[in-house]
Amino acid sequence: MAFATLKNRSSLYSRLGFSRALASLSIGTDLVSSAPEIALQRARTWDEGVSSKFSTTPLKDIFKGKKVVVFGLPGAYTGVCSAQHVPSYKSNVDKFKAKGIDSLVCVAVNDPYVLNGWAEKLQAKDAIEFYGDFDGSFHKSFGLTMDLSGALLGERSTRWSAYVEDGKVKAVNIEKVPSEFKVSGAELATPMYGQLLSRLKMELSSQARPKSGTPIFSSFTCSLCHVLTQLATLYDSC
Amino acid sequence: MAFATLKNRSSLYSRLGFSRALASLSIGTDLVSSAPEIALQRARTWDEGVSSKFSTTPLKDIFKGKKVVVFGLPGAYTGVCSAQHVPSYKSNVDKFKAKGIDSLVCVAVNDPYVLNGWAEKLQAKDAIEFYGDFDGSFHKSFGLTMDLSGALLGERSTRWSAYVEDGKVKAVNIEKVPSEFKVSGAELATPMYGQLLSRLKMELSSQARPKSGTPIFSSFTCSLCHVLTQLATLYDSC
Repeated sequence: MAFATLKNRSSLYSRLGFSRALASLSIGTDLVSSAPEIALQRARTWDEGVSSKFSTTPLKDIFKGKKVVVFGLPGAYTGVCSAQHVPSYKSNVDKFKAKGIDSLVCVAVNDPYVLNGWAEKLQAKDAIEFYGDFDGSFHKSFGLTMDLSGALLGERSTRWSAYVEDGKVKAVNIEKVPSEFKVSGAELATPMYGQLLSRLKMELSSQARPKSGTPIFSSFTCSLCHVLTQLATLYDSC
Repeated sequence: MAFATLKNRSSLYSRLGFSRALASLSIGTDLVSSAPEIALQRARTWDEGVSSKFSTTPLKDIFKGKKVVVFGLPGAYTGVCSAQHVPSYKSNVDKFKAKGIDSLVCVAVNDPYVLNGWAEKLQAKDAIEFYGDFDGSFHKSFGLTMDLSGALLGERSTRWSAYVEDGKVKAVNIEKVPSEFKVSGAELATPMYGQLLSRLKMELSSQARPKSGTPIFSSFTCSLCHVLTQLATLYDSC
């Protein structure tokens, strides 16, 4: 699938009238303590599911004591997810490991058997841990679901990524619409970029200095251009 | 996957405490007129979904003026569905065509992109029309859903089959638990067997003659043995 074609679809969801739920996942959120009852389902074949007695994985087992880059997406076998989002992380797995990241985690509102079939087709199981959120409880808990019935999907996850240390969110990036792929890819998911981008967002949204911490940029004419320039500079030196 | 292993799992769902919803799909149900607002989603790739503007297919387009054998199952990439249910129909497609069946239809509470990926993996797309019921509205309308959260699936279809002429159900077979594969396979889905089995069920459940129509068997000692004997005899001559 050509990326140009995908770009032409970027406003697909917004044209369909979808609106994103108010995101409650933010810097500082503790994924483990704020949702102790939530568990995900490691991707596996049906036979493995039966053998495991349909076991689930609590969030503490995924995040506690680890440095994790996690990304969520609307669904297995959909366009941007298959052609860009997963490949973006798969092809950068060595860079993440070199930076001390313990695991790359992909979550979606799919059952673990579907997710396993898709991960195998993408040949991404060795690089990424895939977890199903079959009832959407994880994404609902953190305000990350949206109604994608217009695309024949139902209630799913929006497209997002986060950098998480010992369960605590250090950076989070959520696409405005899930057909876009601007901020949730691997390039902006490393700790440095993630934290920088989150700080920039905070500064841009407040149109002034943030209440705490030192502002990254004290003045600029075109905010977006300035952000992109800074990111490009940092990207070269990182 | 060995069939012996599958058989050992046949009480899996019942052991998990699932109960089947009361089925309202029965002989005489008109699928078209009783659910005019319901549409299914033909299995397709995401790109085809976008090209089709996420079109759906009303039930009249699937059933009206046609002889259709339709079967439903708990989900793509699950055990019995992949190893037995779909293969059963796929391998008998020529027999169905020879008997004047216009189409074989498989439905599941999955989105059409997942269903397409699974159908391609099973190499069954040429033989069977796959339709998603992404929000479960079709199966809910006919009392065919059940909670399979214990198997990490959520609300899904039970396992069933029906023979439908011009939208009207002529025979229907629903498994007691979806992990079983006793009555919903291709062998019992032809018009003759389907109608016979439905009549037998009616007679056995009433423990007497049905209120209308001629009973198939007027007396027998062991009901189940007698049914199986009759079916075996008819199977040879059909």
